[in-house]
Amino acid sequence: MTTTSGSTGTATSTWHAAWLPDEVLRPPGRRRVRLLATGDDPVLSTLRDEVARATRLHGGAVVDDERTHLVLALASEARVLPAWRTAAGRALDLARRPGLDGELGRQGFVVARVDDSLVVVAATPVGLLAGWHHLLRSGEQVFDGASGLVEHLPAVAVRKLDHWDNLAADSPMGPVERGYAGASLWFADGRVRDDLTRVADYARLLAHVGVNAVCLNNVNVHERESALLTTGLDQVARLASVFRAQGVRTYLAVDFAAPLTSGALTTSDPLDDDVRAWWRRATAAVYAAVPDFGGFVVKADSEGRPGPFAYGRTHADGANLLARALAPHGGTVFWRAFVYDHRQDWRDRSTDRARAAYDHFTPLDGEFDANVVVQVKLGPIDFQVREPVSPLLAAMPRTRLAMELQVTQEYTGQQQHACYLAPLWREALDFRPWGPLDLAEPGRTVADVLRGADDLPGALTAVSNVGDDPFWTGHPLAQANLYAYGRLAWDPTLDPSALLDEWLGLTFPGADERVAATVHAVLDDSWHVYESYTAPLGVGFMVKPGHHYGPDVDGYEYTPWGTYHFADRDGIGVDRTRATGTGFTGQYPAPWRDVYESPDTCPDALLLFFHHVPYTHVLHSGSTVVQHVYDTHVAGAEATERMREAWRSVRGLVPDDVFDRVASRLDEQVRSAAEWRDQVNTYFLRKSGIPDPADRVIP
Amino acid sequence: MTTTSGSTGTATSTWHAAWLPDEVLRPPGRRRVRLLATGDDPVLSTLRDEVARATRLHGGAVVDDERTHLVLALASEARVLPAWRTAAGRALDLARRPGLDGELGRQGFVVARVDDSLVVVAATPVGLLAGWHHLLRSGEQVFDGASGLVEHLPAVAVRKLDHWDNLAADSPMGPVERGYAGASLWFADGRVRDDLTRVADYARLLAHVGVNAVCLNNVNVHERESALLTTGLDQVARLASVFRAQGVRTYLAVDFAAPLTSGALTTSDPLDDDVRAWWRRATAAVYAAVPDFGGFVVKADSEGRPGPFAYGRTHADGANLLARALAPHGGTVFWRAFVYDHRQDWRDRSTDRARAAYDHFTPLDGEFDANVVVQVKLGPIDFQVREPVSPLLAAMPRTRLAMELQVTQEYTGQQQHACYLAPLWREALDFRPWGPLDLAEPGRTVADVLRGADDLPGALTAVSNVGDDPFWTGHPLAQANLYAYGRLAWDPTLDPSALLDEWLGLTFPGADERVAATVHAVLDDSWHVYESYTAPLGVGFMVKPGHHYGPDVDGYEYTPWGTYHFADRDGIGVDRTRATGTGFTGQYPAPWRDVYESPDTCPDALLLFFHHVPYTHVLHSGSTVVQHVYDTHVAGAEATERMREAWRSVRGLVPDDVFDRVASRLDEQVRSAAEWRDQVNTYFLRKSGIPDPADRVIP
Repeated sequence: MTTTSGSTGTATSTWHAAWLPDEVLRPPGRRRVRLLATGDDPVLSTLRDEVARATRLHGGAVVDDERTHLVLALASEARVLPAWRTAAGRALDLARRPGLDGELGRQGFVVARVDDSLVVVAATPVGLLAGWHHLLRSGEQVFDGASGLVEHLPAVAVRKLDHWDNLAADSPMGPVERGYAGASLWFADGRVRDDLTRVADYARLLAHVGVNAVCLNNVNVHERESALLTTGLDQVARLASVFRAQGVRTYLAVDFAAPLTSGALTTSDPLDDDVRAWWRRATAAVYAAVPDFGGFVVKADSEGRPGPFAYGRTHADGANLLARALAPHGGTVFWRAFVYDHRQDWRDRSTDRARAAYDHFTPLDGEFDANVVVQVKLGPIDFQVREPVSPLLAAMPRTRLAMELQVTQEYTGQQQHACYLAPLWREALDFRPWGPLDLAEPGRTVADVLRGADDLPGALTAVSNVGDDPFWTGHPLAQANLYAYGRLAWDPTLDPSALLDEWLGLTFPGADERVAATVHAVLDDSWHVYESYTAPLGVGFMVKPGHHYGPDVDGYEYTPWGTYHFADRDGIGVDRTRATGTGFTGQYPAPWRDVYESPDTCPDALLLFFHHVPYTHVLHSGSTVVQHVYDTHVAGAEATERMREAWRSVRGLVPDDVFDRVASRLDEQVRSAAEWRDQVNTYFLRKSGIPDPADRVIP
Repeated sequence: MTTTSGSTGTATSTWHAAWLPDEVLRPPGRRRVRLLATGDDPVLSTLRDEVARATRLHGGAVVDDERTHLVLALASEARVLPAWRTAAGRALDLARRPGLDGELGRQGFVVARVDDSLVVVAATPVGLLAGWHHLLRSGEQVFDGASGLVEHLPAVAVRKLDHWDNLAADSPMGPVERGYAGASLWFADGRVRDDLTRVADYARLLAHVGVNAVCLNNVNVHERESALLTTGLDQVARLASVFRAQGVRTYLAVDFAAPLTSGALTTSDPLDDDVRAWWRRATAAVYAAVPDFGGFVVKADSEGRPGPFAYGRTHADGANLLARALAPHGGTVFWRAFVYDHRQDWRDRSTDRARAAYDHFTPLDGEFDANVVVQVKLGPIDFQVREPVSPLLAAMPRTRLAMELQVTQEYTGQQQHACYLAPLWREALDFRPWGPLDLAEPGRTVADVLRGADDLPGALTAVSNVGDDPFWTGHPLAQANLYAYGRLAWDPTLDPSALLDEWLGLTFPGADERVAATVHAVLDDSWHVYESYTAPLGVGFMVKPGHHYGPDVDGYEYTPWGTYHFADRDGIGVDRTRATGTGFTGQYPAPWRDVYESPDTCPDALLLFFHHVPYTHVLHSGSTVVQHVYDTHVAGAEATERMREAWRSVRGLVPDDVFDRVASRLDEQVRSAAEWRDQVNTYFLRKSGIPDPADRVIP
C-alpha cells in the first residue's frame, strides 16, 4: 500500500486512508487553533487528539489566546467571549428546541466568521466533532469565506450502518454475509479481535460522514452471535468504547427466539411474562456494560428467522416486547419490515412478494411503541438495481420509519463492478409518494417521511460495504458509496455529483484535475450503465441464485423465492395491476396507484415491474421492449469498455496500488458485462424469435 | 435397526445386513460340510470362518470324513479323492489356459454333483470363496439339482468399484463426492477409522457379488488425500488387509502432479528422469506396505486436475509413466478418458464436449503400455439418464478398455428416487457398436469389447453408492444397484429382472411373495420412469447446477460446462450430425454413424442428443416432440404415485425401518417428480406456445 494510514503505523497494519489522509488535516492544521471544550468526554478527547495531530503534522499550533484563526468551542464555553456569543447562542437555541429539532440541534453545529477568525460552535461534543469534520471536508475555502453564520443540522437523528458480520470465517454465509471486501473488521475466529486499531480508524471515517450508529452483527443471528448478548458483553463493550470515542452508538442484532435458543426458557412468546423478564434482564445487562448502547436490530419471521408469528402474535407485539425492555435505558428497536413468504410455490401467480411488507405492517400502524422504528427496504422486493420505492414508506403515518439502503453491492456488481449508488438513493429520497401536487406545494418526499414528526422521528439505515480488505471496500471506488450514504443521511438534498467531488477532493488531495474528470466519467452514470446490461425495465432478479453475481435469466424463475419474470415466447413482466394482476399498484396513494396501473403512464424503467407486456410493446422511448433489451445491453457493455479506457488515462496520477486494483476490477466488469449482454440478448432472441435489426451478433 | 448385522454385534455398530443376513447361510449351514483347503491364505481363513459360522448358526457340522453333503475344495487338495477328481481337473484346466482365460479360470469355480454330495472346486482360494457365495445365492435349490458339472467364470478379470471418498467431512465436496449415503465407510476426521469392522462387512458384501477391486479415494485427489501415497501408507495397509481377506485388491487414486505438489520436485513432467524416479520410489513403497496392491486410478487433465498436457505430453506419456513404476510389482493404471474442456464458451456452438474423449484418445491407440487400462464412461457426456454408448469403446482396438458406470445416483435421483439402473447398464453392455450384422453373426457387443483379447484384457468399473448410512445406500432399494453392478460385471448376460429376484431372495429371505411383486412393481421400470419425468429424449442436463438434484431446465445453458440443449421458441436439441452439426456421429462405426445421422432413423430416446428439431417434429411414436414432453412428464409423475401406493402394501411384510425409509424416499420422489413435471412442461409451454390438448393444467 502506498497510500496508507493506520494509527499504529506498524508495517503489518496498513490500510488505505480512504477520505481521511493526513493531507486533509492541513487547512486547520497549519493554523493557530483555540479549543474551548473541557471535560473528560471521550468525544472531546478525540477532538483534542485530532487538533493536536493536525497542528503537529502541518505546522500550526494549539493556542489559548485570542490571536487565533480558528476557534472550536462548546457553546457553554464559547459564551464567555462576547465576540462569539451570537454563534454560541444560536447553537444553544437549536439544541433547546422541543422534540426532534432539539435532538438534531444537539448533533449539529454553527459556523461563523468573526473578524479574522472562523468560529465553530456546538451544543455538544458530538456536534463539535461534526463541525471539525466539516472543516476538514471544506478545506482551505472555508477560511476564505464571507462573514456570517451558518447552521449545520442533520436531517435525521439516527444515521445507522448495519454490518452483516458473523463471528467466524466459517459461518454458513462467510465472515460477512453479502460482504465483498474481505473478513469482518472486528470479528475473527469466533470473537472480537484483540487489536481494534483499524476499527478506530473506521469509526473516525464514519464520524466524518455523519454516521452515528452501527449494528455490529448480522441480522441473521445464529447461535454464536446470539451469545454476544449474554456471555459476549465484555467484547461488545470493548467495541462500543472504540465507536463511542467518535460519537457512534452501538447496536446489536438479536435473535427473537433468544430466550428459547439460549436454553433459558421453553418459549419466546412475546406476551409471556418470563420472556418479558428475560429480555428485561438481558437488556439491563447490556446497559451495565454499555451505558450508551443504541438498541436492537431485529429480523423476525423473515427467511426462516424466528418471530412472533410462531405464537400467533403480531409484529407489534414482538417489537414492543423488546422496546419495553429498552425503554428504561433510552434504547431503540429497529424492527425490519422485510417479511414475506420465502417458500412460495412458483406455480401460484396470485401471491406477490412485493405486497408482503405492506400487507403485514400497515394493519399495525399506531400499535408500535415510541421507541420502535420500523426499518423498510428501499424497494418492495430486495435491493434490485431498479425498483419502485416501497409503498409502505407512505402508509405508516403513526409509526416511526427508517429506510434501509444497501451500500454493499449484493445485486449491483458486488464491488467487482463500479456502480455509484448515490443517484439511486437520491432518487428514492426525492420520491413524492403523494405526487408532485403542484409547483407551489410539491408534496412531501420520502426524505420528509424519514425525518418524521417531533414525536415520530425516523431514521436512515444501510448495509455496510466494508471489510478488512486494504481498500476497505474491495473496489476502491466503492468507498464513494459509503461516503455518499453517510452524507445523504445527514443531508438528503446533496447532489450525488457534488458528493463525488467532495469524496475525490478528500481521497485524492491535490491530484491532477484529470483524476476527477476520469472518476466522474467512470462513476457518474455507472448505476444506469449497470442497469443497462443487467435485468431490464425493472424486471429484477436475473442473477445467479445463491451468490447473486452474474447473469442467470431463469435462475429464480422456478424457485420458492417469489422473484419471477414470467417470460414466455410472447412477452415478459409481472402484472401487478389492480385490474388484472396482483393488485400491488393499489398499495400506492394517488397519483402513483394510477400512474403505475397503466402501461401508458408507467415509467419505462419500471414497466416490467408492474406489467406483463408483449416483446413488441412500444415504450415511451419509441423502442419496443425487445429492441430496448438488445440496444441497452450492447450499449451497456460498450460503456464498460469506455469506463476501463478512461481509467487507463490516470495511470501515474493516482497511487499505483489504487490504479491497479481499479484496473483489474474494470477488466472483470468488462468481461462480466459482455457475459450479461450475451446471455440476456440470447435469451430474448431465443424466446421472442425477433432478430436484432442492427448488424450485431447475438450468440 | 431391526435387520442388522455387524460382526462385532455391539449395540453401537449396527447396520443393515443387505444381501447377507444370517438366514442366507442356512442351506449350507444346516449340512455336513467338508473343507479341503489348507494353508494360511487370508481368503481361506475367511472361508473357514464362513463355514464355521454357517454350521454353528444353522445346526450343520464341519466334518472330515466322506459322510458329507457339501465339499468345498481347492483343486490341488480335491484331486486326492477319486470321486471328485473330474471336477478338480476341470478347475485346474481352466486355470491353466493361456492368457486371460487362465486368469478368469483362477477366479472361477466348478460345481459338480457326485452321488449325494455337492462339490465345489476351484484352483485358488479366491475362486473357492466365489463358489461359496454362489452356494449362498443359490439357496436350497442348488442341493436339489441334477448331477453334472457346471463351470462358473467371470467375464472380466477386474471388477472394480471406485469410491469418491475424501479424508475429511469438511472436504470441499463433502466426505464422499457425489455420495448420498452418509460419510465414508473408512475415512473420518482426516484419517482411516480405527474400527474397520464395518469395512470388513462391506468387503464381504463385495466378495459376494464378485467385485474384486476397490479404489479407496476420490479421483479428485486433493492435498490431504495425496498423502495417502506417502505418509498414509500404514493406514492404506490396514484397509488393504481387510479387503484382502475377501479377495479384493486395493487401488489408490493419485494426483498426477504428486511429485510437484508433495514438494519433492519442481516438475511432474512424465518424461523427466527425476519424476520417473519419484514414481518408482513411491510405488515401491506402496508395494512394501501392500504387496498385492492393485494399482493407480488417475483423473488427469480433467476438470482442473493436473496432467501431462501441462508439459506438452500425451496421455499415453502420462499413463505409461505410472505404468512403468507399477509394472515390476504387477500393478495396473486405470487412466480415465474423461478429458474435455470444462471452460467452454457457451457461445461457441462448434465445440462439442461429446467429441472430446474420442478426439483426445483415439490418436493414442496402441501407445499405452500393457498394464494401462483406459477407463471410459458409459456415455460421451456424463452419466446422464440417457446417452448413447461412448464411441471411444469401439475405437481403441489396441488398448485395454474399462467401461465406467455410475452406481451412485448423481444424475438419477441421488438415492432419493428409486431408480434401478441394471437395465441401463445391460443395454450398454449389449450395445453392438458395429451393428447387428446379421442373425447368424450378430457382431461384438460392448461386453465383448470389455472382456478384450488375451493380451488386452479389459475391465468393468463403477462409482460406488455406499456410505456409513445404516442402509449403506441411503435408499434401501438402491442396494439393488450395487448388487446388480457386481453381478453384471461377473456375467454381463444376466437379466436385470432376474437379478432383482436374486437380490430380493437374499435381502428379504422368506418374505411374503407380495414383497417381491411390490419391489418389482417399484423398480422394474423405474429407470424409464425417472427418464420420463426428467430431461426428455436424450437431451440431458436439465438438473440444478452444482449439486445436480432437481430440475433447472436452463441451469447449464449458459455455463462453461459444455452441456447445452439450445432450446429456443422453435425447437430444441443438439445438432451432432456430420452434415450440419458437430460431426460427433462420425465417431461411430457403421451402421450407427448413419443411423444416428438422420432423424428418420435415430431412435426417439436419443433424438435430441443428436438433432436439433422443431417442437412439432413427429417422433417414431407418432407423437410430436412437445406432446411427448407433456405426456411423458405427466405419466412419469403419475407413475411415482403408483410406486408409492404399491410400496404401502408391504407395510408389515418387511422390517419397519426398511419400510419407513423407503416410504419417506418415495414421498420425496413423488414431490420431486411433480416439480420436474411442472417445471419442464411449463418451460416447454412458455417456449413453444403450443398448448397441451389434453385437459391438463400446466402452471
